[in-house]
Order: sequence, then structure tokens, then C-alpha cells
Amino acid sequence: MPTITAEPLTKAAFAPFGQVIEADGAESWPINAGKATRYNDLAKVEFTGQNARPLISIFRGPPQSLPYTLQLLERHPLGSQAFVPMTEHPFLVTVALEENGKPGPLRSFLTKRGQGVNISMNTWHGVLTPLGGASEFLIVDRGGDGDNNELFNLDEAWTVLAP
Amino acid sequence: MPTITAEPLTKAAFAPFGQVIEADGAESWPINAGKATRYNDLAKVEFTGQNARPLISIFRGPPQSLPYTLQLLERHPLGSQAFVPMTEHPFLVTVALEENGKPGPLRSFLTKRGQGVNISMNTWHGVLTPLGGASEFLIVDRGGDGDNNELFNLDEAWTVLAP
Repeated sequence: MPTITAEPLTKAAFAPFGQVIEADGAESWPINAGKATRYNDLAKVEFTGQNARPLISIFRGPPQSLPYTLQLLERHPLGSQAFVPMTEHPFLVTVALEENGKPGPLRSFLTKRGQGVNISMNTWHGVLTPLGGASEFLIVDRGGDGDNNELFNLDEAWTVLAP
Repeated sequence: MPTITAEPLTKAAFAPFGQVIEADGAESWPINAGKATRYNDLAKVEFTGQNARPLISIFRGPPQSLPYTLQLLERHPLGSQAFVPMTEHPFLVTVALEENGKPGPLRSFLTKRGQGVNISMNTWHGVLTPLGGASEFLIVDRGGDGDNNELFNLDEAWTVLAP
């Protein structure tokens, strides 16, 4: 069984797959008469196809733990998908680039408090993987006509180890 | 000084001002081979004007406490603005309808764990008011050309009391 070790989630490491949604290091300016700070435009929101529009939704799922085994990937050919936890618990983001017409080697990223991700349109990723506790996520993705969900069952399960 | 008491945030009470972003009571279906649930399309995302596009940003501000006094309102004539906490702490949402060309009487709503709001385009609201602890919010609002921020200083400060 293929085994990988979870990596810390950083903007540079995640760049081939999408954007890290986090305040640290982002362009920012004061708002609200100086009482708060805006960290601006942290994700590339993509939505295409007939009657495309951005949706705001919530995903809720039971917490998982490491080591974590997965076999199912999905991707969304018509839009990006942002995952931002509504808690301070971490989560696991597993992704893959396309290679020879199917998902290539997996990489898995472990978030820290204050981080979300925006997964680029048509990028393979594992399903929601909350870690460590309560598990609601704010989701920004694409609504509209057409089939925006493609599934892929890997030939064998992969296991993600704690760093 | 005008004084109001914070109300619990409910979909029905908040309807004149926007939408409550919460899983409870929303249309939902299983995703991820039954391992999670999607609570779908919880907000009316509005963005209009030249080069309009949805932005994903983070707001960070220091926690406040009740009673809370405010005098500054703002509204966004070109788009809605969603506020979803990235923690389980509550926050205060103060809003007003337009009356005779200026903000009418204020109403103030206290959130509970798992709730965010989407404030409708052009609806008067107070500035970010985290309560009780760490205070990062995921914001979905409108980018593009033109001035999307209008401020209004109330003639006198209002005080919001705990329920």
C-alpha cells in the first residue's frame, strides 16, 4: 500500500493545486476606522459553464485521524472549491495532479489554525477530512447547469501518515 | 443614548437584512460516499457593476464585549457581504433598514456556534464585532471597479445590551 507523510500547508507548496486562504503574509489594510484588518482577495474563485454562479454552503462530517487511508478522489471541472473550517481544528487536504490521463502521486497537506484552501478547478482531491474535533466547513464553490463532479477510485488505497 | 437588547440570530428575524449561513434547517444531501453532508446554497451572493467578481478575504479584529456601543454604520451598494467566523466564538451583527433616506432603528443579533451571516447588498450594518475570543472571519464580498463602501455616522451612539 502506498504511504505518504502529511506536509505542512504552505502557500508555496500548495501553489500547483490552488491557494491557501490565510491572513498571514497576505496583502492587507485597516478597515472599520482602524478597528480591524482586511486580508484581501485570498483565492481565485472560478465558476464557468451555463448559469454558473458562486455558492456558499456548509459541509459537515465526522472527524478522522492519522494515519488516514483513502481511495476515492474527486474533481470539479466547472469551478474551484474553497474549504474553510468554522472551528480552530486542523484538517487534511490530499491532492494530485493529472498524469497520463489519471491522478498522479498524491500529496497531503496538514492545516493549522486559521488556514483554509481553495482547490483549483479540475484538480483532483480527496474528500473532506476533518481532524481533531467538530467539523463544519464553509464551502465556496460553483452552482449552475451541467455535471461538476467527477469521481476516481484509485487502484489501491493510499495511507497518509502524521508528520 | 438609545439602547437595544441583542436578539438571538434566526433565519426569520434576519430575513429583511440577508441570510443566516448555518447548517441547521437547510436543504442537505449526503456527499463523499455518505461520509459527509452538504448543506447547500445558504446565501444569496450578489455582485454587480463593472468588472464585478466575488472575493474571498479574511477580516481580523480584536474581541469586543457587551454592552457594546456603536455609532458607525456602513453599506455596500454593489454587493452582498458574508461574515463567517473561523472559530466557535459568537459575534454581534447590527443592522438597520433605510428610512427617510438614512438608517432607521438598529437591530442587533447575537450569533451562536456554527452561524454566519450574509448581509444583503446596500443594507446598513455595524462594523465587525467579534465577541468572546479570537476573531478571524471568512468574508465573501464583491470586488471590481467603483466605490462599494458607504459610511454613515449616526447622530448619537447606540448601546447594545446582552440578552
